[in-house]
Amino acid sequence: MFVKGARQLIGLLSRSPGSRPFPARPSPGRPFHFRRQLASLGSLPQLTKDRYPHVKRGEYANLDQQHVGFFKDLLGLNRVITDSEECESFNVDWIKGVRGYSQCVLKPKTTEEVSKILSYCNKHRIAVCPQGGNTGLVGGSVPVFDEVILWTGLMNEIDSLDETSGVLTCQAGCILENLESYVSERGLMIPLDLGAKGSCHIGGNVSTNAGGLRLIRYGNLHGSVLGIEAVKANGEVVDCLSTLKKDNTGYHLKHLFMGSEGTLGIVTKVAINCPPKPKAYNVAFLGLNTFEDVLKTLRKAREELGEILASCELIDDLSLDLVTTHLNVKPPFEPYPFHMLIETHGSNAEHDEQKMNNFLENIMAKGLVMNGTTTNEVSKMKTIWDLRERITESLTRDGYVFKYDISLPTEHFYSLVPIMRERLGDLSFRVCGYGHVGDGNIHLNISVHEFTKEVLERIEPYIYEVTAKYKGSVSAEHGVGFRKPKYIHYSKTKEAIALMKQLKALMDPNGILNPYKVLPP
Amino acid sequence: MFVKGARQLIGLLSRSPGSRPFPARPSPGRPFHFRRQLASLGSLPQLTKDRYPHVKRGEYANLDQQHVGFFKDLLGLNRVITDSEECESFNVDWIKGVRGYSQCVLKPKTTEEVSKILSYCNKHRIAVCPQGGNTGLVGGSVPVFDEVILWTGLMNEIDSLDETSGVLTCQAGCILENLESYVSERGLMIPLDLGAKGSCHIGGNVSTNAGGLRLIRYGNLHGSVLGIEAVKANGEVVDCLSTLKKDNTGYHLKHLFMGSEGTLGIVTKVAINCPPKPKAYNVAFLGLNTFEDVLKTLRKAREELGEILASCELIDDLSLDLVTTHLNVKPPFEPYPFHMLIETHGSNAEHDEQKMNNFLENIMAKGLVMNGTTTNEVSKMKTIWDLRERITESLTRDGYVFKYDISLPTEHFYSLVPIMRERLGDLSFRVCGYGHVGDGNIHLNISVHEFTKEVLERIEPYIYEVTAKYKGSVSAEHGVGFRKPKYIHYSKTKEAIALMKQLKALMDPNGILNPYKVLPP
Repeated sequence: MFVKGARQLIGLLSRSPGSRPFPARPSPGRPFHFRRQLASLGSLPQLTKDRYPHVKRGEYANLDQQHVGFFKDLLGLNRVITDSEECESFNVDWIKGVRGYSQCVLKPKTTEEVSKILSYCNKHRIAVCPQGGNTGLVGGSVPVFDEVILWTGLMNEIDSLDETSGVLTCQAGCILENLESYVSERGLMIPLDLGAKGSCHIGGNVSTNAGGLRLIRYGNLHGSVLGIEAVKANGEVVDCLSTLKKDNTGYHLKHLFMGSEGTLGIVTKVAINCPPKPKAYNVAFLGLNTFEDVLKTLRKAREELGEILASCELIDDLSLDLVTTHLNVKPPFEPYPFHMLIETHGSNAEHDEQKMNNFLENIMAKGLVMNGTTTNEVSKMKTIWDLRERITESLTRDGYVFKYDISLPTEHFYSLVPIMRERLGDLSFRVCGYGHVGDGNIHLNISVHEFTKEVLERIEPYIYEVTAKYKGSVSAEHGVGFRKPKYIHYSKTKEAIALMKQLKALMDPNGILNPYKVLPP
Repeated sequence: MFVKGARQLIGLLSRSPGSRPFPARPSPGRPFHFRRQLASLGSLPQLTKDRYPHVKRGEYANLDQQHVGFFKDLLGLNRVITDSEECESFNVDWIKGVRGYSQCVLKPKTTEEVSKILSYCNKHRIAVCPQGGNTGLVGGSVPVFDEVILWTGLMNEIDSLDETSGVLTCQAGCILENLESYVSERGLMIPLDLGAKGSCHIGGNVSTNAGGLRLIRYGNLHGSVLGIEAVKANGEVVDCLSTLKKDNTGYHLKHLFMGSEGTLGIVTKVAINCPPKPKAYNVAFLGLNTFEDVLKTLRKAREELGEILASCELIDDLSLDLVTTHLNVKPPFEPYPFHMLIETHGSNAEHDEQKMNNFLENIMAKGLVMNGTTTNEVSKMKTIWDLRERITESLTRDGYVFKYDISLPTEHFYSLVPIMRERLGDLSFRVCGYGHVGDGNIHLNISVHEFTKEVLERIEPYIYEVTAKYKGSVSAEHGVGFRKPKYIHYSKTKEAIALMKQLKALMDPNGILNPYKVLPP
């Protein structure tokens, strides 16, 4: 049976025979080296209060000079920003979808300072928007109105790393990539990896229960995070900063702060379990004709790569086209309807290469894969990962993009893309899907020349109705933020939502923490 | 350098060369085949109310005929047990440490029935003790006074298994071993494994956040459990039974029910992520002279076995002596001060065997290990695992045993054993330690001829003070139950305990769910 491109695949497979020590992939070698921040504020989006006029400002205090004076006394002049222009970049999310008008950014360095800020704000009913790297995609980390912004960027100290157990303890404002570099030099790795790693803060990752590219192998943060220190709305510090792998002494409170997006408390410290850094990495990039073949290949990858399978990503043709068109990144071969990016992490380069080769030979023999390339060279792996990780960046150059982050049962992973293409017809020039096929999490994007209500109403709530029909989740990993509270009932029962509201009322009775987010009105 | 027993180790290492398909270890082949239940009630322990007279019965209703009538109307005559003798085995925990005097055992089959029971009990202020397999070690699953027992044993249906994604959904009363058999036949495994698997219920496992023997590889239940359905004290069903690997739509409520031991709600259904069943298993049993060598061997195991390391257990000489003396189980060689049991799970038998051999040759060459044996034969693996898993059983024949389940930083894993030996002197004839050295969780047991207050006061709170000094946890995996509420302050701050109490008041305002447990008075 002739398999197109088999030569190329086989050619690459026959790279250096036998075992050779694989140089650790340098942490900054991973793509997405640009930081997610606003390069220029030239084209500011409409203010959120104007674009979403149905959302009303809560009965919070208006910030006055006395309040600002308190903050300046506490933090010093340099760590209280009140200049409008300086505040602007904290008011806008990086995809320029929402925009608040806060006139005050606070930059605490310690838990104690966060505690004093919240205690004061709670007493004076000042609304607070916690902000980390501001890399979120659902408008959760910028103010909706004039909330005071509490930015964690100066809380960036590593407290300790136990190199034997692999437990890292650090402040919430540490940038994920910096942590990765730090532990990597000590033979460990952070179990979480995502495109925004160059900017996002670990506190934000934990607060939003970030998923990312390695979840299939290293599990989710509820499993990896061993301890959390958080500050409640009233300023009380809840210290659950355990560094133990097992601790069953009462309620597992730390999970309240994971995924609640700063609405129940502000995470100030994190203890995270870091697995040993792999000794061997392999990356394969495959071209496939049908989604059916993608599913079969995924099953084979699980079976044959087993414990070394670390990432399994899908990129459809129109997603690949984004990076080739907007960023001029070259794919290794002519595009197919579907592409898979598979990465392995293991402790024995020879074994891993054998497993990868067996897997590739098998899927080729079955005719599942039309073309492919595999490598363990750092620069080539980086080039391949660019094709996946720079999609988000390239989307910002595609006009206005409606972004969806959906979990679906694996067999329906791609179902929404053709459904939405048909529904939108000429209203959109690109409906594309990519993401974590190994975890059932697709990023579906709908590009239009400019935002119109007509398109929005054509998409929503229809897309969520279909997601609910397939028993999916309307937010897989991006969270709820400002954009999705009114849709969480598609994935949560009314009893669950009622319990969420009770928890909010219990832990933040004045509602000062990240208001207008997560919970439906 | 001469290594004693090297021949034996090498002899076993040279088993069938090359790769061969390894027969899946049959699920019931794993030891601990006796079920944890009272064989005879001949020697009943003192009633809890008499042994612990300082604990006062809460202001709950006394069960009357009208209440029983309601239950009989709801469940039928056969599923409401009121016969004193029949009730007795539900009143006593399997280690015969605590004993209530409930006169009513309810056996619901459905979530709806649980909901109706709780709604009624809440209205009438009837205290309820949820019970699964009754395999707990901290008195959490039997009544303290006359609480109605809600037994989940008839809620034992498997709802669904998605063989592609590996997600199993089932009722709370399914026995862990039965689930393991069910998914094993379909190429999957349950990520949790523990000695009590033949009796314990998955609902109890989840409610107590059970740890067990595979945590080092498959992570904890907070990572593996995808969804939970639970019934709150007022009868309201909280359906968070997601089967998705990623779902960030609001607060992660399911974690409230994990580890809260039935005090915030009764778990009725569970969705759990089942990884593919390994194609290859290997077990090594090693004899070592010092704990320092144990630590070095652990580090080498992490490094060289990497992703296939599935269990790493320690058994000290006096723990091994328990099974050889009481159960006549034969160890493969003369005892050493320390023994390690290491298991690997992998997808390629040949690779795994190579990794195991490299590891063993390395630790032998370094003189870390004095003797050892390794096998991949089912019957031999079972014999080796008996040495570890039957310790708990053999302890029940050692007189009265004070049991402690402590987490400690790895380097201090064994520190408590010599400390307690010295402190107790002749008061105890055996202070032994064994457990999950890979996770820092030791089971420390102190045997005496009979319970005396003098010994108890010599041990407690001293043992917890030392644990706290080392920044350990006073309950690693067994939970708090009835025995430890007054000690959780050694591992939890007062703010954390205050928040726990607030959560309890919010979710169970009448305090009917598993009273006298978990929370300090």
